[in-house]
Amino acid sequence: MKDIKIAIIQMKVSNDKNANIFKAEQMISEAVKDERSPELLVLPEMFNCPYQSDLFPEYAEEEGEYTYQQLARIARENQIYLLGGSIPEREGNKIYNTAYIFDREGRNIGKHRKIHLFDIDIEGGQTFRESDTLSSGNSIEVFETDIGKIGVIICYDIRFPELSRLLVEKGAEIILVPAAFNMTTGPAHWEILFRTRALDNQVFMIGASPARNEKSNYISYGNSIIVDPWGRVLNRAKEREGIVLETINLGLVKKIREELPLLKHMRRDLYRINEL
Amino acid sequence: MKDIKIAIIQMKVSNDKNANIFKAEQMISEAVKDERSPELLVLPEMFNCPYQSDLFPEYAEEEGEYTYQQLARIARENQIYLLGGSIPEREGNKIYNTAYIFDREGRNIGKHRKIHLFDIDIEGGQTFRESDTLSSGNSIEVFETDIGKIGVIICYDIRFPELSRLLVEKGAEIILVPAAFNMTTGPAHWEILFRTRALDNQVFMIGASPARNEKSNYISYGNSIIVDPWGRVLNRAKEREGIVLETINLGLVKKIREELPLLKHMRRDLYRINEL
Repeated sequence: MKDIKIAIIQMKVSNDKNANIFKAEQMISEAVKDERSPELLVLPEMFNCPYQSDLFPEYAEEEGEYTYQQLARIARENQIYLLGGSIPEREGNKIYNTAYIFDREGRNIGKHRKIHLFDIDIEGGQTFRESDTLSSGNSIEVFETDIGKIGVIICYDIRFPELSRLLVEKGAEIILVPAAFNMTTGPAHWEILFRTRALDNQVFMIGASPARNEKSNYISYGNSIIVDPWGRVLNRAKEREGIVLETINLGLVKKIREELPLLKHMRRDLYRINEL
Repeated sequence: MKDIKIAIIQMKVSNDKNANIFKAEQMISEAVKDERSPELLVLPEMFNCPYQSDLFPEYAEEEGEYTYQQLARIARENQIYLLGGSIPEREGNKIYNTAYIFDREGRNIGKHRKIHLFDIDIEGGQTFRESDTLSSGNSIEVFETDIGKIGVIICYDIRFPELSRLLVEKGAEIILVPAAFNMTTGPAHWEILFRTRALDNQVFMIGASPARNEKSNYISYGNSIIVDPWGRVLNRAKEREGIVLETINLGLVKKIREELPLLKHMRRDLYRINEL
């Protein structure tokens, strides 16, 4: 089975939307020049906008507007699959946390709107309320590409095992996760969530985080990560800006599912996750 | 909320059933003499029988027979809640991997028959087929006690997130897991499975393993473990025989569920795990 070459763009996000898009393009250009020539590139959650509820409306764009056009062009010009991290998307009077995916010709092949909104209030730790300005997505989809079947979830979505399971039941072999954990939840949960979702479902899990920016209102954990279907960490960034390059082989999904047939051993006669 | 004092009996299991039961009783007596006076004691998976498919029929007993009687007596004499790890249980021409739970008066308040049978064949690693001799349980239950609502699963059951979720939906605040991971799956998956089930469901996860016995056919990983609802490891044994003592407070289940309301944020309008 064919190797898939992946690059995660762990970029530092600023308050300047144009500068963020420009930086994303620069780092993507740098990544594709690498001798490993990545073909699936993943940007982080809210890569064009600070992760701040009150700013999402100000930075939001409708589908097909500026950021979307730039992503399509960058995908086409570099002939890559590009997951545009996520950006605030406006539709009518609602705003969503949305990840668009583009193919090598720059065609949009789908999008994921964050399904679970991040509202948290930890004593002595992180507080955040996405639901102040965002609405939640309602669609659970897998995107068929010529490099494999790809599921996309965003950040807090990873905390709900039902969602990754449903994507795998729909055929996902790789799950891409633009995500900005913070300095409370990152050290506590980031790695084990990626590893356990990977090994429970025997898929590759790819987490793309913004680089840590101590000056921002919400401080991202960084630590972009690639985990294989046995739950092994193949690659993991630190907190700084940089590119994570890794080659994965989907043959391992098949091999692990034969050796330890978890999906076959599920007791579908006793329980079932139903999509409503 | 009241503290609950727990002891895990990480005992080495031999081929001699009577010696195993005798050792379990000795170690329980030692544990209850400790000044922390544990009130919920947990034995490991297959504590009276080597973990070997071909031996399960030979060691199996019907409900109410010798091992069951001994467990009831030990619980009553020590006035403790006792989870009798698991033992091979015979009913008709079937054998189950069964955990009985007894209250302070030695009354059996329920049992869990392992739902997912462990059939695995890893290249260069562990091979095992429970289904050669065992049948699987079909019941998902939570036991109400005066110290809390307790779920029980056995070993391989932990790999299926649906089961822990269903127990939590039925009210479980603690999940007890007699389990014998091996030297392939233990180092790879033991800790992260306990930690992720704990933090996904915001419950205490208690794993009771046999001590490692290099002479046995199937070599247990050991590493009995207690994890809190934030996914923190409160206590963890090494590979040797010994008692793990820990005090937990169920107030933490409530606190964590308020700070990070995962169970509230589940999208019950989009997906649901149904018990069939």
